[in-house]
Amino acid sequence: MKLTERQIISMIREMTKNTSLGVEIGIGDDAALFHFSSGEVILSIDSFFEGVHFELSTHTPRDIGWKAVAASLSDIAAMGGEPLCAMIALSFPSSPDAEFVRSIFSGAIECLESFNSSLVGGDITEGKTLGLTVSVVGTPTPAGVVRRSGSMKGDVIGVTGTIGDSAAGLKILKSGKDTLRLNYPRLVESHLRPKPKFAEGVILARMGATAMEDISDGLASDMKNICIESGLGCEIDQNSIPLSEEAISFARTIKEDPYRWALVGGEDYELLFTCSFGDFKEVEREFGQIGKRVTCIGRMVEGKERKLITSDGVEELGEGYEHFVNGRKDCT
Amino acid sequence: MKLTERQIISMIREMTKNTSLGVEIGIGDDAALFHFSSGEVILSIDSFFEGVHFELSTHTPRDIGWKAVAASLSDIAAMGGEPLCAMIALSFPSSPDAEFVRSIFSGAIECLESFNSSLVGGDITEGKTLGLTVSVVGTPTPAGVVRRSGSMKGDVIGVTGTIGDSAAGLKILKSGKDTLRLNYPRLVESHLRPKPKFAEGVILARMGATAMEDISDGLASDMKNICIESGLGCEIDQNSIPLSEEAISFARTIKEDPYRWALVGGEDYELLFTCSFGDFKEVEREFGQIGKRVTCIGRMVEGKERKLITSDGVEELGEGYEHFVNGRKDCT
Repeated sequence: MKLTERQIISMIREMTKNTSLGVEIGIGDDAALFHFSSGEVILSIDSFFEGVHFELSTHTPRDIGWKAVAASLSDIAAMGGEPLCAMIALSFPSSPDAEFVRSIFSGAIECLESFNSSLVGGDITEGKTLGLTVSVVGTPTPAGVVRRSGSMKGDVIGVTGTIGDSAAGLKILKSGKDTLRLNYPRLVESHLRPKPKFAEGVILARMGATAMEDISDGLASDMKNICIESGLGCEIDQNSIPLSEEAISFARTIKEDPYRWALVGGEDYELLFTCSFGDFKEVEREFGQIGKRVTCIGRMVEGKERKLITSDGVEELGEGYEHFVNGRKDCT
Repeated sequence: MKLTERQIISMIREMTKNTSLGVEIGIGDDAALFHFSSGEVILSIDSFFEGVHFELSTHTPRDIGWKAVAASLSDIAAMGGEPLCAMIALSFPSSPDAEFVRSIFSGAIECLESFNSSLVGGDITEGKTLGLTVSVVGTPTPAGVVRRSGSMKGDVIGVTGTIGDSAAGLKILKSGKDTLRLNYPRLVESHLRPKPKFAEGVILARMGATAMEDISDGLASDMKNICIESGLGCEIDQNSIPLSEEAISFARTIKEDPYRWALVGGEDYELLFTCSFGDFKEVEREFGQIGKRVTCIGRMVEGKERKLITSDGVEELGEGYEHFVNGRKDCT
């Protein structure tokens, strides 16, 4: 069944009927009205286009909806904030099929609801490509927000979870091999259904993280941002980068270097942060208590150099993904 | 000069250095942080794609930036709110030229600044088409917001300014005739540089407007929204629809009906509202004092019928522009 703009809005309105606290006006008016108490909002926007950020051959419409929202929410987590609500602008090349649109929004709403936030508005237009632009609103906790620019010389560099899983998952999806999908479900899940790290971000803000960012373009690129913004260099110990057992096992199978996935793959949406050595010990303890993983992977140093220390010696940390430099996104 | 993503962000950051009150963190971090006092935010998002919403043959990059922001801000005006800040997600088919990007953002920032608001964030990605998605944040005045759904039977229907100018302006731009541009500068300006009606919206909210919307898809379509949301019908008196002298004169020259431009043209960004007859008299007085135009064009009636009363009789009000129904946007 093909839908008009008005029919799509009406469908989404029905899907967002059970909106959460704070949403006074949701879908269906000129704008949404959101009520909250802190007087401060954290805002972010991200676009996702077919052929650049995802392919319909590897992502279901539901995956696309989830992932676009999760990636945008992750920017709120990376500031140490909590999510409130989101808006989605969707563009289609032609009159969209009802089930397809419903699936995209199901994934988006599922993701928002699992992080206690709501879809409050949107826009549906024609466009040459299938694309989603997600705008998210969050709020800081009493600990305040963590910027990219506050790193101090000598700070420890930490990451949450494991990195490189998403790039490995994309490789599996692109191979089209069902056996690989069955053997490494966590890698595929990591690529298709990333989860913003709100709990971790709030703890890190409270425990004195001096800089923080989510790993969206690869450890090398995201580390570069923190270094540039903080006016420092860094030394990353490659062997300390936390890899999952699945990623190590899959890399061995296809004879690839899993550290490359971590360094330039991106889309992990884990948090990369810096803090004092003493604070890091506290962070480790607190993460341990809630069963979350955190790893020290290096330290901030004076100067502009960003070094990667490997078993073979010292090299440049280099760059991850950047639009208009690396061509089409490909995490291999 | 071609730019990378990082260079573009750095350029825009420089352009938004003088941000207004409330912006604690602007361009260059994971997300923006905005401070304000009311505890309520009005949110809206709108996309603009080349070939659907604008053409590079008729719009300069600066016009595109202005217009995309103005159209989004207009949704805040249509709620009776005041603007705070905006984010822009920009997509380009290939590595963008520095001057082109600077011009788009100049237009966008110029528009934001003329309404006392700031650009606080954005996203730059590759995409098959040139496209802007603008997400805006505003705040209600103490009078609260005006929805589309509050119309009462017997309410007067009013519009601000004149309607149809934007469609006439687009016609002139498409003709490619410089003489027409010179003869009708206000029509062209109306299409390329629309101005959200904040002052009018705030007055209307304070003076008891029962429903309000901005005219983006044409009077017929926007009237339909208010009727459906309010569960009422309407009677519009075509001869009362306020047309500008320029639109009437241009229509006479090319032998077209200027009321069609008003009814199905769209992109006027004037405000369409309903209120009691008594309140309308007060609105007229107040608008008169500040030199703004407001016109009664009809009334809300029981039932579902939306009638247009013309010199020739009564007809269906019909529809304006709707995506995936009317094909590509064309206001002729």
